[in-house]
Amino acid sequence: MKLRYLTLPVLLLVLSQVANALAQEDPLPSWNDGKTKQSIISFVERVTNENSEDYVQPADRIATFDNDGTLWSEQPFYFQLAFALDRVKAMAPQHPEWKDKQPFKGVLDGDLKAVMAGGKKSLVEIIATTHAGMTTDEFEEIVTQWIATAKHPTTGRLYKEMVFQPMLELLAYLRANDFKTFIVSGGGIEFMRPWTEATYGIPPEQVVGSSIKTQYELRDGKPVIVRLPEVDFIDDKEGKPVGILSHIGRHPIFAAGNSDGDWQMLQYTTIGHKPSFGLIVHHTDAEREWSYDRDSHIGQLDKALDDAPRRGWTVVDMKQDWKRIYPN
Amino acid sequence: MKLRYLTLPVLLLVLSQVANALAQEDPLPSWNDGKTKQSIISFVERVTNENSEDYVQPADRIATFDNDGTLWSEQPFYFQLAFALDRVKAMAPQHPEWKDKQPFKGVLDGDLKAVMAGGKKSLVEIIATTHAGMTTDEFEEIVTQWIATAKHPTTGRLYKEMVFQPMLELLAYLRANDFKTFIVSGGGIEFMRPWTEATYGIPPEQVVGSSIKTQYELRDGKPVIVRLPEVDFIDDKEGKPVGILSHIGRHPIFAAGNSDGDWQMLQYTTIGHKPSFGLIVHHTDAEREWSYDRDSHIGQLDKALDDAPRRGWTVVDMKQDWKRIYPN
Repeated sequence: MKLRYLTLPVLLLVLSQVANALAQEDPLPSWNDGKTKQSIISFVERVTNENSEDYVQPADRIATFDNDGTLWSEQPFYFQLAFALDRVKAMAPQHPEWKDKQPFKGVLDGDLKAVMAGGKKSLVEIIATTHAGMTTDEFEEIVTQWIATAKHPTTGRLYKEMVFQPMLELLAYLRANDFKTFIVSGGGIEFMRPWTEATYGIPPEQVVGSSIKTQYELRDGKPVIVRLPEVDFIDDKEGKPVGILSHIGRHPIFAAGNSDGDWQMLQYTTIGHKPSFGLIVHHTDAEREWSYDRDSHIGQLDKALDDAPRRGWTVVDMKQDWKRIYPN
Repeated sequence: MKLRYLTLPVLLLVLSQVANALAQEDPLPSWNDGKTKQSIISFVERVTNENSEDYVQPADRIATFDNDGTLWSEQPFYFQLAFALDRVKAMAPQHPEWKDKQPFKGVLDGDLKAVMAGGKKSLVEIIATTHAGMTTDEFEEIVTQWIATAKHPTTGRLYKEMVFQPMLELLAYLRANDFKTFIVSGGGIEFMRPWTEATYGIPPEQVVGSSIKTQYELRDGKPVIVRLPEVDFIDDKEGKPVGILSHIGRHPIFAAGNSDGDWQMLQYTTIGHKPSFGLIVHHTDAEREWSYDRDSHIGQLDKALDDAPRRGWTVVDMKQDWKRIYPN
């Protein structure tokens, strides 16, 4: 088109077409334009372009996501702990002795300080009591009912609605580009599986997490798998690369986390493996979500944050980079 | 078409079209027509027909296959043991002391009786020596080279060509009907993953097997996962439902095995879960493969065979049901 044809109506037409195209094509509408968003899109375009040096076959496009603090919130404490405390309350009628016995008394009295005074031993006792001793089918049913109804104490939202809208878009964008998306979380694998498919589009067989031991048996002639009060595997820190190896058996090219619990997964994914992408969700938004990093007891982010610049990991500044936090 | 038009040429044309259609549509060409083949096809048609009472959503079409003796041969001993023995020979130059030390001396002398005289302890020593002490990347490379070249002592075929052609067709048929196919084997998970995708169309993340413990570390600044000489999980017998839960997190609707090591997987898949399909490969063909069941040291099939009629499991009579054993 020669310049003399560029009348105002033509210009407007062209601009509106460009705007339309941009609006239709933005795969990450809840991400503000800028360096962070651009780095993600640029990576995906490079690994999916057959003419690019960085092209990766679809089968090798493995993406791993931490869950707590990366795909949903984790404050004031991990949502799975809220589940455990709710279970103690639900189970209390069958355990009258808990009224006088810590850590259960503390849970029932709403006295978390008394619970925490028992340290790690108390937490393990609560988890073992609420997460073991039933069949896997029974546990799935318990989690399914809880996740459908349980609400966060301060936001009043269902926990399952405290997932990050920008990360949902990122998961969908990667899958639209033939990535296979996995969760690799320190949370309990059987606590996540009942709802990750509906919530994140991630099916049970693509969920990696911490686990307790289980045992197969025929009970009254019916096969069941029973959950035992014994730790099997902790999928955190050095455990994350091990969990990835065990469950996936391929090297991820994309990993996302938010804490030092994800540090080793980010190393494993990116160091010496190109092309690759490491992403850290930095909780910087005290107003819309929470703001915490180096000194937090939950989701401490310290070493991985120091390491990010020299490793070339992309740090998401939640306050700056995200237009919104949760789905409408 | 009125009957008077049914001249011989027309009849031949119709017949040839029918024959063509049948030939094109036979999804299991290496299976002889009969009850076994028909039971498989009938099951797949029922669970994929939306108007059938037995319809199953694609996401729930999970099929699990044992490997040794089910997808490939396992005589005169598990092929992974052949791999271990070959590794002892390959590693011997770095271990001059093995010339005088059992069980390694027995392996190097080709004296398997001397090896077996050491019982389980000797086998564990051989497996630990040949399967641990390297990184997972190094082990993958070792397996990849072995599987590309190693040949069976009596058939002279590459081990990877001793896979069962009828089972390859069954895997492809299930996948064409939106089943997700998994291996659930007592064999080593990292021994299988390097070649199951090329051989069976089953990617690493859909392989479940026995494992040894591994450890993540930064070695000279590079992330590696090191294989440790310690058993982590035995994916056999009661372990198979546990492995299915851990890796898949869904209930299979189809399970195939060939020995009592698969008995619990067959129970778990079928008892109290309809629709479902249990399949047992019965090695009845001493001429084209091997013939063994109740008294075999490898792949003993006894309790599961007794259980098959009352559970409604389909028993494949290899000699009768399969037109051929291996691919051409």
